[in-house]
Amino acid sequence: MDIATRVYNHKWKIDPIIRSLIDTDFYKLLMCQSVFRNKPQTEVTFSLINRSTSVPLAHLIDEGELREQLDHIRSLSLSRGESTWLRGNTFYGKRQMFRPDFMEWFESLRLPAYHLERVGDQYELTFEGKWHEVMLWEISALAVLMELRSRAVLNDMGRFELQVLYARAMTRVWEKIEQLRDIDGLSIADFGTRRRHGFLWQDWCVQAMREGLGSKFTGTSNCLIAMRREVEAIGTNAHELPMVYSALAADDAALARAPYDVLSDWHEEHDGNLRIILPDTYGTQGFLDHAPDWLAGWTGIRIDSGDPAAWAEVAIKWWQERGEDPLQKRVIFSDGLDVDKIAELHGKFAGRTKVSFGWGTLLTNDFRGLVPDDGLAPFSLVCKAISANGKPTVKLSDNPEKAMGPADEIARYKRVFGIGEQEHIDVIV
Amino acid sequence: MDIATRVYNHKWKIDPIIRSLIDTDFYKLLMCQSVFRNKPQTEVTFSLINRSTSVPLAHLIDEGELREQLDHIRSLSLSRGESTWLRGNTFYGKRQMFRPDFMEWFESLRLPAYHLERVGDQYELTFEGKWHEVMLWEISALAVLMELRSRAVLNDMGRFELQVLYARAMTRVWEKIEQLRDIDGLSIADFGTRRRHGFLWQDWCVQAMREGLGSKFTGTSNCLIAMRREVEAIGTNAHELPMVYSALAADDAALARAPYDVLSDWHEEHDGNLRIILPDTYGTQGFLDHAPDWLAGWTGIRIDSGDPAAWAEVAIKWWQERGEDPLQKRVIFSDGLDVDKIAELHGKFAGRTKVSFGWGTLLTNDFRGLVPDDGLAPFSLVCKAISANGKPTVKLSDNPEKAMGPADEIARYKRVFGIGEQEHIDVIV
Repeated sequence: MDIATRVYNHKWKIDPIIRSLIDTDFYKLLMCQSVFRNKPQTEVTFSLINRSTSVPLAHLIDEGELREQLDHIRSLSLSRGESTWLRGNTFYGKRQMFRPDFMEWFESLRLPAYHLERVGDQYELTFEGKWHEVMLWEISALAVLMELRSRAVLNDMGRFELQVLYARAMTRVWEKIEQLRDIDGLSIADFGTRRRHGFLWQDWCVQAMREGLGSKFTGTSNCLIAMRREVEAIGTNAHELPMVYSALAADDAALARAPYDVLSDWHEEHDGNLRIILPDTYGTQGFLDHAPDWLAGWTGIRIDSGDPAAWAEVAIKWWQERGEDPLQKRVIFSDGLDVDKIAELHGKFAGRTKVSFGWGTLLTNDFRGLVPDDGLAPFSLVCKAISANGKPTVKLSDNPEKAMGPADEIARYKRVFGIGEQEHIDVIV
Repeated sequence: MDIATRVYNHKWKIDPIIRSLIDTDFYKLLMCQSVFRNKPQTEVTFSLINRSTSVPLAHLIDEGELREQLDHIRSLSLSRGESTWLRGNTFYGKRQMFRPDFMEWFESLRLPAYHLERVGDQYELTFEGKWHEVMLWEISALAVLMELRSRAVLNDMGRFELQVLYARAMTRVWEKIEQLRDIDGLSIADFGTRRRHGFLWQDWCVQAMREGLGSKFTGTSNCLIAMRREVEAIGTNAHELPMVYSALAADDAALARAPYDVLSDWHEEHDGNLRIILPDTYGTQGFLDHAPDWLAGWTGIRIDSGDPAAWAEVAIKWWQERGEDPLQKRVIFSDGLDVDKIAELHGKFAGRTKVSFGWGTLLTNDFRGLVPDDGLAPFSLVCKAISANGKPTVKLSDNPEKAMGPADEIARYKRVFGIGEQEHIDVIV
């Protein structure tokens, strides 16, 4: 028995879920730096959205416990070791990815206030403030809610039931890894921070991936785990950039340009494997059709909604039309992946282009069927920028089930971006 | 990280499998006391017998490592806490089960020398000396060989493969326990020390049984685990008593009496739930047919070979013929049990007599199918008294597959005990 560890743990008033500001996705930090540089005066509101209304979060999770966890996150600041790592580590083969002015600001950062209210069986949780500050709430807030929900379900279980639950979950992850091991030339990373079962579980999954997949495992999106386990931190950019840029657009013409303006700013800041197009915010087809030629020179594309094989075909065709060699390009799949889908997509596209996978929730939170009433099944919780400088944001994506924003604005965006009929696809996670 | 624990573990030249003289079956100590009292001058030889010749023990297990483990056991003596527990604890509801003269002797005991030789792919391992001393080698020697074989197979596995292996094995044990939990009135104990996968694993299994089965779990045969986990120590007596008594018999008439002489000695020493007949050493039918009436007054019977349901019927019929009420008697099943067999036997006999189960190898060593080539499947290793005062011992049992002894002596015993045709049953463990 390690008495010191037990006594140390007793000192916590709570058992904190987030213990570090870098227990977040790497791309958040890249985007944060970009926003800090290009849009430092933008006021943005992030909001929690539980797309799985059948999961009554406010019924499962005690409001006091939720506040304690969120308050604890507000007490965090970057530690010296974390700062040293961010300043000195090589990311994507490059030193000093984070510039001194950004690091100075980050070292003094405490996260801004949150607004929490119970509305029926759900929580209304919003974050208002400077974009580059509130944006850092997203991953932490999601991870807190996911883990508090896990803890609520686990709370009723005995010690051996818990041991066996994790034994089963470990067995499941390992069997997935054994299947992936057989795929020649696989390239896969952990993207599962936001909707993970819990921090320790994600940490275990990352170690299992490294042990089981060797060089096929390319890294994790989680900075803290990347630092501690000495694996690569992985990620580029997300929908919030074009969503906020678009909300800020003064008119329809500016709106039509906004998604390219985002990437133009990114182009100045990053090269190589960080130049990954995320084309689906307002429909992939229109985005590619109207894209400037310099974008075809980018390294790759990330497919995050719609039918992944169909959109990968569209991307390959687009590169060919623009005179690019798809074999020199990379397609990153990151939407609702599990092992069979990964194997299928790899089989279809390996040899025609470079293929990678960002594996999320069904890596770090596949507890489906392991407790009664499936109380630990993952569900579709997101935290999105809903307005910028007072104007609502809109997301369309290639799956209308993932669209968000006020109806009139959605209609306007559809008109501006020329969106016709879209295929509905069920959202699992 | 618990540095002290790690440093402490580094101090061991080896990682000992047996760390205590009471890491043995409770009935060994009861029998030891009986032998110490009744047959203290008897010279006995115990010998390892691997009935699974397809498992090449000497090929799998390094002779040096085996010697280190056996030498370590010879360095053990009863600790003060162990002695206090044996002297002061209540066993089967009775205080001072172990008498002061026996305890004094036990406190000064070190195990006698062993003889080890490699013969082809097997080890010849024998223990010669005073019966009450060499008999204490049996369980330790078996447990050492079983665990060294486990370690040899596990040695090639990575950390995560190991984690997942144990995750699968835990899941399997727990699923068995969940099935057993549904059996009303079940009464079951752990008898799995000798052929366990490993000490820590048996310890986990006992805790899982206690947590999962509550009062349906009646205890463990392992004294060390019983002491540490504060569960009942369970067991009565074994074949070695009639085998040695019979070998010592001067002529055929004395031989025919020997199995009853054993129980006559036992009758003087023990009452209640310790008066359990083990009738199959030289055939159950003949034993019961010729049994003195006082034996019908005993509390129960243990069925350890042959068709368990058939022999339980024989026992019930025997009690009825002797004017005893089977509902006041107990039948203990202990041969090759697994969950389905337990459920079936309980269903057949509960309500007609008291029923209990001594669950052994398929509780503490069911790793079947969990590694390539089934390298961790349990196998049939025993360690038996093969001679007493220079005369060979014989065991017939109700399954000719379990018979042992020189052919001419087996023939003589069959004649003396009137054994005809016997049903062959495959021995799994």
